[in-house]
Amino acid sequence: MNKVNIAVLGATGAVGREMLKVLQERRFPINQLKALASARSSGMELPFGDGTITVEEATENSFEGMDIVLGAASNALAKQLAPAIVKAGAVFVDNSSAFRMVDDVPLIVPEINPEDVQKHKGIISNPNCSTIITLTAVAALNRLSPIQTMVASTYQAVSGAGANGLRELEQQVLDYAAGKKPEVNVFPWQIAFNLIPQIGDDSGNGYTSEEMKMQNEGRKIMHLPELNVTCTCVRVPVLRSHSISVTLRTQRKISVAEAREAIAAAPGCRLVDDLAGKVYPMPLDTSDQDTVFVGRIRDDLTDEKGLTLWCCGDQIRKGAATNAIQIAELLLKR
Amino acid sequence: MNKVNIAVLGATGAVGREMLKVLQERRFPINQLKALASARSSGMELPFGDGTITVEEATENSFEGMDIVLGAASNALAKQLAPAIVKAGAVFVDNSSAFRMVDDVPLIVPEINPEDVQKHKGIISNPNCSTIITLTAVAALNRLSPIQTMVASTYQAVSGAGANGLRELEQQVLDYAAGKKPEVNVFPWQIAFNLIPQIGDDSGNGYTSEEMKMQNEGRKIMHLPELNVTCTCVRVPVLRSHSISVTLRTQRKISVAEAREAIAAAPGCRLVDDLAGKVYPMPLDTSDQDTVFVGRIRDDLTDEKGLTLWCCGDQIRKGAATNAIQIAELLLKR
Repeated sequence: MNKVNIAVLGATGAVGREMLKVLQERRFPINQLKALASARSSGMELPFGDGTITVEEATENSFEGMDIVLGAASNALAKQLAPAIVKAGAVFVDNSSAFRMVDDVPLIVPEINPEDVQKHKGIISNPNCSTIITLTAVAALNRLSPIQTMVASTYQAVSGAGANGLRELEQQVLDYAAGKKPEVNVFPWQIAFNLIPQIGDDSGNGYTSEEMKMQNEGRKIMHLPELNVTCTCVRVPVLRSHSISVTLRTQRKISVAEAREAIAAAPGCRLVDDLAGKVYPMPLDTSDQDTVFVGRIRDDLTDEKGLTLWCCGDQIRKGAATNAIQIAELLLKR
Repeated sequence: MNKVNIAVLGATGAVGREMLKVLQERRFPINQLKALASARSSGMELPFGDGTITVEEATENSFEGMDIVLGAASNALAKQLAPAIVKAGAVFVDNSSAFRMVDDVPLIVPEINPEDVQKHKGIISNPNCSTIITLTAVAALNRLSPIQTMVASTYQAVSGAGANGLRELEQQVLDYAAGKKPEVNVFPWQIAFNLIPQIGDDSGNGYTSEEMKMQNEGRKIMHLPELNVTCTCVRVPVLRSHSISVTLRTQRKISVAEAREAIAAAPGCRLVDDLAGKVYPMPLDTSDQDTVFVGRIRDDLTDEKGLTLWCCGDQIRKGAATNAIQIAELLLKR
């Protein structure tokens, strides 16, 4: 396999740092590696393998000779630099939401729609984290019979707001332990010992932008243009694994036994489903891993063609960094 | 109004202590008050008003002359002592689940089915905490058009496991802050920075006993024998307010505007619903209060006759102690 020149854009953030870690872990065939970030991080040393890599300022001139650019930056920076990346002949695998719903930009979960990678014109989007985790869990069911509707309630970790989100929960807990009033900076309200039922902004129909991603990105990834999803996104005081309670209806009824078997065999999934034995997916068990854990599978009592389940996955890894690098691996295979 | 003789059974627990507090706050017309608990708590002083009350051992002889016994004890103790309470001529308002589904035991949320109190034969049950909070939130919709189905995902505070549950989360957080490994005693797994998607035991159909309460108690309280509920109960690292994400279908479509108006006018509810203004129910805002906060009301995208919403309420108060004392107040009115 030829080694490639790869850049991580936004390398100093929680997802960017994890991308460096995952590239190393998966022994991605790297010729040249660049860690790019804003000017103020230039010169910073980031861990890479047994050593470090020096951060360079990301500019429009950063991408000459690159084969792949992994994006872990803001929507604004992704939009600003995408033309330079494409012009340099690199493929931009972008974790921002900037291009996800653009027609000729593939939106990929490698376990679900790897073939869509071939349609790219220089940009491939990495889906929303909760969407990746939920769809990885339910894709096996969709292969048995198309999913028609999903009602999803999320329990989203603070890592979804990046390294600052992680620090905020940790600091609020330390403040609580010290008897101090917790400071609120990153989230709109205190998150320690609290729940915030808003992630993203009002999208105009009473749903937040984050909530609408589950339907809109789900339609594109699973090739289900008619899929309807009612999603409620809630920030919870958990560090880095997202959990989702999903009730879904398929075209034909899938039995619990059939669902368990399909999910146990599905790529990227692990079935952990023994209620009597107190075995089910939990954030602490799934953190720092790439696998989506699925359990609590049972019949939906409100719909004869429904099933309900609970899934968890690491938001920074499968929800972001690992999924992006899996996409890059698909590019290598071409 | 005549003053009554009232006993609190299980007075030393989180709910029992709150009952004493709520009796005082609501100026319940008390002639004689007894605080009853197990032998090992006998002689203990509990706060009551500006002073204290001495705990007595609960025995079958404790109830002579009592008018009302508020139960905040285990199912086993409720079953053991109920015959003595009834024989003594007192009404047993029981917070345990022991009698909730018994035919001639009314199951009451005073804002919903106060008239059912009249059917009692000595025992009245206080419903499950999540059920009380959810039904208080949606009762106004059910009055507009009968609820046919609900899909509910709960975010339940540790207070649902009593004073020991509260202590366990607090201790685990202090341990974390001190760099120590958290000890697990009350919950099956660590709850700090985690989620546990199991409350209660396996009820045989893949649902837990706690999850089935929402359907079974909901049917009885709302007089909706056909109501179907798919519920997922999840313990979250929050101290004392339960939150519930509910998607429901009514017989006729209720518009969002109509739902908001009805909920704003509903007894026991407060509408807090302005997503753009970051206003929605949150555990920290609803703790230590009797009101159920309701917000995030919007159309269900999966069902033309559906609505989805988010509600929060204090588990120890409206979910247990306050609801029981509201039932006792209904008895006074007779």
